[in-house]
Amino acid sequence: MAYILGVDIGGTSIKAGLFDKSGNLIDVKKIQTIEIVNDVAYAMVVQGLGELLSARDVSSSEVAAIGMTVPGPVDSDGRVGVLANISLDAEGLKGALHKAFPAATIAFVNDANAAALGELWQGGAQGVSNCVMVTLGTGVGGGVIVDGHLVAGAFGAAGEIGHLTMNYEETQTCGCGRKGCLEQYASAKGIVRLYHAACERAKQTPVELSHETDTISVFKAYAAGDACAKEAIEEMSEYLGRALALIACVVDPEVVLIGGGVAGGYDVYAEKVTESFWRHCFSGCAAMRISAATLGNEAGMYGAAYCALQQWGK
Amino acid sequence: MAYILGVDIGGTSIKAGLFDKSGNLIDVKKIQTIEIVNDVAYAMVVQGLGELLSARDVSSSEVAAIGMTVPGPVDSDGRVGVLANISLDAEGLKGALHKAFPAATIAFVNDANAAALGELWQGGAQGVSNCVMVTLGTGVGGGVIVDGHLVAGAFGAAGEIGHLTMNYEETQTCGCGRKGCLEQYASAKGIVRLYHAACERAKQTPVELSHETDTISVFKAYAAGDACAKEAIEEMSEYLGRALALIACVVDPEVVLIGGGVAGGYDVYAEKVTESFWRHCFSGCAAMRISAATLGNEAGMYGAAYCALQQWGK
Repeated sequence: MAYILGVDIGGTSIKAGLFDKSGNLIDVKKIQTIEIVNDVAYAMVVQGLGELLSARDVSSSEVAAIGMTVPGPVDSDGRVGVLANISLDAEGLKGALHKAFPAATIAFVNDANAAALGELWQGGAQGVSNCVMVTLGTGVGGGVIVDGHLVAGAFGAAGEIGHLTMNYEETQTCGCGRKGCLEQYASAKGIVRLYHAACERAKQTPVELSHETDTISVFKAYAAGDACAKEAIEEMSEYLGRALALIACVVDPEVVLIGGGVAGGYDVYAEKVTESFWRHCFSGCAAMRISAATLGNEAGMYGAAYCALQQWGK
Repeated sequence: MAYILGVDIGGTSIKAGLFDKSGNLIDVKKIQTIEIVNDVAYAMVVQGLGELLSARDVSSSEVAAIGMTVPGPVDSDGRVGVLANISLDAEGLKGALHKAFPAATIAFVNDANAAALGELWQGGAQGVSNCVMVTLGTGVGGGVIVDGHLVAGAFGAAGEIGHLTMNYEETQTCGCGRKGCLEQYASAKGIVRLYHAACERAKQTPVELSHETDTISVFKAYAAGDACAKEAIEEMSEYLGRALALIACVVDPEVVLIGGGVAGGYDVYAEKVTESFWRHCFSGCAAMRISAATLGNEAGMYGAAYCALQQWGK
């Protein structure tokens, strides 16, 4: 029988899933990693994947495909670009996996794009051919699916939704070096920033936040009637709705899924985002649906597996 | 031998091209039309196409595919939506063509999307897999190509670049009913509007324009040192460059082609648009090229043929 491995590579650990070809998740294993840049580290990854297989009596020759997420650009030919936030030698790891799994197709996919593919395969976008996933986490990422296939882009930058310029008057600088990116308003960090700014304008003491991405406390404050939290959430929703209207004019998806950590509070802002979208969208795209993603932080693992499965099937 | 017909349907006439499968344009025929909504009109179209074929000794059974542009939405399944600016019964015409060319694959494609496909096949985007065509005419249209295939969109509205909202403070209304669309700044009508507004602000008498889309006179005034024309062209370029930066974050094309009537003055604004793009684009997309389309007003005809050829080849 043919199995697929979906491997979500993070900064300090790997989450690997064993799937069958129908998309059933059979088992998951977390593998602690150091910097994945030499033979010792590659061997740790191979060993971890081997343990995942042997726990389910699957032999390495039964692995048809291995998909791996990377937090950076992957172009339409599957080439990994510069990875700024992680120590990973993608080619080195690929070579080690080829040795351990000689029969397997190996594919890399950008992590936000993988989440979109995962939702398409087994999540909130099943049965949909054209969709966009927006991941609201520490930053804002995205993945664009057209006719059932991921749009990687000429330079691996398709779906960089977080860097749509939404405010040309912004004075603060985004992580990317420009000003006014969606990420500055709709990421966890952005929402907290908007809340603090609203408190400052109103000369109100903000509620205590446990960290700089603690949107849960902002959402709680909103539920408790905090006017500054309301202002921040309305500002975030206005920009996110505008951004979705821009995206709709370019690729006209049937569905936009909202995922990532901030999607935990989806009910708080769902209606506001939809209202903003309707106010700003081209009439031809008004039937687009907006809804919450369903796979949570397993979306990347699912999508990595699906990406590899699609390439294996070619 | 197999031939392809590419049919560009306009308001008062049809331009039909006879192509071989390699994309060589063998002959062109203009067919005057009345409203294409009944058997009399369908017969006129069929007769015109027949004359185009017989002039080159091609029999109707040698026509493998017929592609037709429509000025309105066509979804990813090839279904034609509401056509606001033309009297055309697409299904009726398709039926008549099926009768006359029983062996031919028949496909409809949005006119702006067709132009993109045409440039991809035989124009300025040959050899490119990911590109966006922006058509600056009376309005602003667009076509998005991903991995060599047209993005139609879930509701046939992909590539509606003209309705990207670029200015949320705009007070005048776009043809689509909203305010601040790219079309209000970068179409022929938009450039003339910006020029007149600049003249009004400067209390300057505008140069004489022959019609409300006479950008040639505005471009000439600019060349002659007219400060208001300069202001209008700079404003147009700023918005167009910003729009291209937004598009790049979504689909990350390798090339953007500028076509349509306003592309006749491409050299006037090319550098300014590129500068604006660079100022606003996400760094990962900065290598994107911007250039002029090369097929002029034959792009739609080429693209209609290519669209039909792609479907025939499936």
